[in-house]
Amino acid sequence: MGSPRVNALGQLLADLPAADEAAATAVRERAAQVLRPAGALARFDELAAWVAGWQGTDRPRIERPAALIFAADHGVAAAASVSAYPVNVTAAMLDAFTGGRSTVSAFARQAGATVRAIDVGVGRPTGDIRVEPALRPDRFDEVVGVARAAVADLDGDLLVLGEMGIGNTTAAAAVAAALAGGEVADWVGRGTGVDDAGLARKRAAVEAAVGRIAGLTDPIDVLREVGGAELVAIAAALVAARHRRLPVVLDGYVVTAAALPVGVAEPAALDHCVAGHCSAEPGHRRLLERLGKPPLLDLGLRLGEGSGAMAAVPLIAMACAGVTEVPTFGEWFGEA
Amino acid sequence: MGSPRVNALGQLLADLPAADEAAATAVRERAAQVLRPAGALARFDELAAWVAGWQGTDRPRIERPAALIFAADHGVAAAASVSAYPVNVTAAMLDAFTGGRSTVSAFARQAGATVRAIDVGVGRPTGDIRVEPALRPDRFDEVVGVARAAVADLDGDLLVLGEMGIGNTTAAAAVAAALAGGEVADWVGRGTGVDDAGLARKRAAVEAAVGRIAGLTDPIDVLREVGGAELVAIAAALVAARHRRLPVVLDGYVVTAAALPVGVAEPAALDHCVAGHCSAEPGHRRLLERLGKPPLLDLGLRLGEGSGAMAAVPLIAMACAGVTEVPTFGEWFGEA
Repeated sequence: MGSPRVNALGQLLADLPAADEAAATAVRERAAQVLRPAGALARFDELAAWVAGWQGTDRPRIERPAALIFAADHGVAAAASVSAYPVNVTAAMLDAFTGGRSTVSAFARQAGATVRAIDVGVGRPTGDIRVEPALRPDRFDEVVGVARAAVADLDGDLLVLGEMGIGNTTAAAAVAAALAGGEVADWVGRGTGVDDAGLARKRAAVEAAVGRIAGLTDPIDVLREVGGAELVAIAAALVAARHRRLPVVLDGYVVTAAALPVGVAEPAALDHCVAGHCSAEPGHRRLLERLGKPPLLDLGLRLGEGSGAMAAVPLIAMACAGVTEVPTFGEWFGEA
Repeated sequence: MGSPRVNALGQLLADLPAADEAAATAVRERAAQVLRPAGALARFDELAAWVAGWQGTDRPRIERPAALIFAADHGVAAAASVSAYPVNVTAAMLDAFTGGRSTVSAFARQAGATVRAIDVGVGRPTGDIRVEPALRPDRFDEVVGVARAAVADLDGDLLVLGEMGIGNTTAAAAVAAALAGGEVADWVGRGTGVDDAGLARKRAAVEAAVGRIAGLTDPIDVLREVGGAELVAIAAALVAARHRRLPVVLDGYVVTAAALPVGVAEPAALDHCVAGHCSAEPGHRRLLERLGKPPLLDLGLRLGEGSGAMAAVPLIAMACAGVTEVPTFGEWFGEA
């Protein structure tokens, strides 16, 4: 199965920059002095300090939030009927993102964000993870390269990561079960809404995939074996964003499962990521607990496509404004 | 204590309009057909239907959210030292709202909302609720009139209600304890951050106030007796908004406590109100449960001034856009 880390994503995990702690501390100190009781916005003030640390400034701002939505198809979807939707919905949704007609597009207009959808394998499905690797090493590296280029091209000050891929909650469950352990059934939910028979097929598919790679320990290799192209792209994009010190908002179960191998490989590698929301997919809450990422929103959304993360963007922008645009008591009494 | 309901707020509770159920139903039906799995945005779709019902349109939109922040002083604050802050902070914060320098002002700029602060008794404190009514009937009616006028003048399609008043979590606790029952201590929290001795003084003040009005059952009269001017204004504003069929976002403990008497008087009278967030003040969660209002945000904020409600505004705007701006599968395949 190849030597771990000798791949494009493993290389990217070297020399990750740290947050600017001086900027974060300056924001924390200012937050304790602005015109409100100290601690009254606790979680928001921590968010502002977090943005400050990654943006490297004591005046953190969210002015150009940008979403990257990675889309791909999954061999297991057609082969094992694990989704309530036909495989060609992935391609239709890719068009909807591009045309600005999807739910995340509508949310992004409200949040003042841009959305770019990137095809990393639509109509070019991964291997059926029950019986073969999702991605061969060369294809894996190709997807990592596409994601790196997308992040390099990005004009933004906050990155929202989203996904689209019929069958991808099956891949997410396989990654989560392989790396976080426990009962496979605990990681398998109804995704877009499979019935009981579909849920049983999903469980069986995940059990087969996890069983196939028993003994494999390198988390990045697990991602390549039982993930999918959009999961790989997300993992690569969030590490690439780290090199730009760009704060990242994680979306639902699939995006978080894609982040998991990175967090297992290097726990601090996800410090620039915040959980936008907790989805209705049962494994998501467990995964967020595993990663120590309390969600900003907890509204039972289960759409994917970056929508839950996008919904959290205005909160992060407000958190920053709540420190930078409010005078301290000292400034205010000087002004007044 | 006067005959219940023979006051300006009691009169306003008559002939409340109902929601436009046809508009709400149309939005629910459309939400089930747009380009995403049915039910994937469950809570958001319900929010959009709720806005539609009150706005009376199957194309609900939040384009002009507007906040009214009512500010007033409390006799109990100076008399019983129930707050961590001196009484003159209310006046200073009123200036900060007017000057656009408060936290809610900063949040509002992010949400595209206006903020108007209204003085309903700053520097003109209510009676010390331990020993006398907060407001005499004529003063009560005067405050109701100011709030009604503010709502009548409002240019907005969603109303955010906020408050400022040193000592007002004591008044809120007294209203909640008197109307929702249970242990007084369960309704008394640290507000802006009183120490243990301050907390004990708050509890004693609330016990005295609730004891003083034992036997009083009319909820509006309870509000007049142990509430405060900004609580009365909030109650009146939300009922006035109902007559305009304007959806309302409730803020934290004080705003919700102000809504409680209205909900006790007429349970359906709060149907046009949504809970923006659940605050860190322990009584707030209990109050939201009592009113059957699950919060949109649950981030431990405890600032007041409408900030938690304002933070939820973009979610409501997104919920509407998520139905109105996303094509149905039929429209999309017709378009594509």
